[in-house]
Amino acid sequence: MSTRLYAFVGGNIGLWQIVRTETIVGEPLLEAKRLNVVSGSEVQPETNAPWVLRGITSNERYVERSEKSAIVAKQQGLARPEATCAALIPIRKNAAWWELTQDERRSVLEEQSKHIQIGLKYLPAVARRLHHCRDLSENEPFDFLNWFEYAPIHEVEFNRLLSELRASEEWKYVEREVDIRLRREDV
Amino acid sequence: MSTRLYAFVGGNIGLWQIVRTETIVGEPLLEAKRLNVVSGSEVQPETNAPWVLRGITSNERYVERSEKSAIVAKQQGLARPEATCAALIPIRKNAAWWELTQDERRSVLEEQSKHIQIGLKYLPAVARRLHHCRDLSENEPFDFLNWFEYAPIHEVEFNRLLSELRASEEWKYVEREVDIRLRREDV
Repeated sequence: MSTRLYAFVGGNIGLWQIVRTETIVGEPLLEAKRLNVVSGSEVQPETNAPWVLRGITSNERYVERSEKSAIVAKQQGLARPEATCAALIPIRKNAAWWELTQDERRSVLEEQSKHIQIGLKYLPAVARRLHHCRDLSENEPFDFLNWFEYAPIHEVEFNRLLSELRASEEWKYVEREVDIRLRREDV
Repeated sequence: MSTRLYAFVGGNIGLWQIVRTETIVGEPLLEAKRLNVVSGSEVQPETNAPWVLRGITSNERYVERSEKSAIVAKQQGLARPEATCAALIPIRKNAAWWELTQDERRSVLEEQSKHIQIGLKYLPAVARRLHHCRDLSENEPFDFLNWFEYAPIHEVEFNRLLSELRASEEWKYVEREVDIRLRREDV
């Protein structure tokens, strides 16, 4: 069975150095120096780490087949040698979002906010993996953990991607967001 | 915060007597006499119970606003005094289902299978709560736990509801299903 569960551990160890943490909205996270990404059954990390965020990859919730085909044709995988920059962006949406029905959420996400179309423009430069947290337990601090990897040369584009999304109708439903930027040494 | 996480514990204690367990498809569950439904933080049940199934209530995945309005107008809640019959029907869908995109799953579930419209016909006689398991961890034995309550007089209708659903296109994706019928004493 493939790995679906990941823990993102903010502490003193890990491949990724935390270079900047910006609280976009809501409660901040505690300070940490490095990020350790732990998968599946290994999720018994540093017990005294300032924070541990868990998420699980899952089925598509909004993407339709034609969009999926366009994404698959353009996207690249994680762990490319040149992608020495990463961002971990945990997000929580408000109660009003979760009370919307499926057609209403799709309408806000794509018809009104162009979330999928905006993301497509930044492929293949930005690679992404989405982790869901909301249904792991009743008490998760975020709903989603967004993980992005890109080469340093594409940082300006990555920032533009975030600006476009944050200006959208969908982001009116975001009640907590922290933007954590990371670097690793070249291999 | 309202309770979302539930454990269904098959063992020797609990409000509900297990009167019949039928394996519809896939691996059976072990024998048990009674079912204990435990909520939220109390989920530290009988440690030597034959089985414990966990699930969490979540946002709507397919229902659209017009359907939701029709459901809300007709449905009744759980724990009605006359509803002394219950059914716990855990289900797992196959990999092909989870690889479908959102539009494809909606098409199979409703346009082809009329899942929502069939369910509506049996309201308010049958009350229901859906629990999701697939994203609780990587190793859950089922994807969903369906919980139903109804009065003994409505058992025939409840069986017809299940027959209609099991004959649908959607059920071709079901790879494990166990049908557990329960009774409790009149209050």
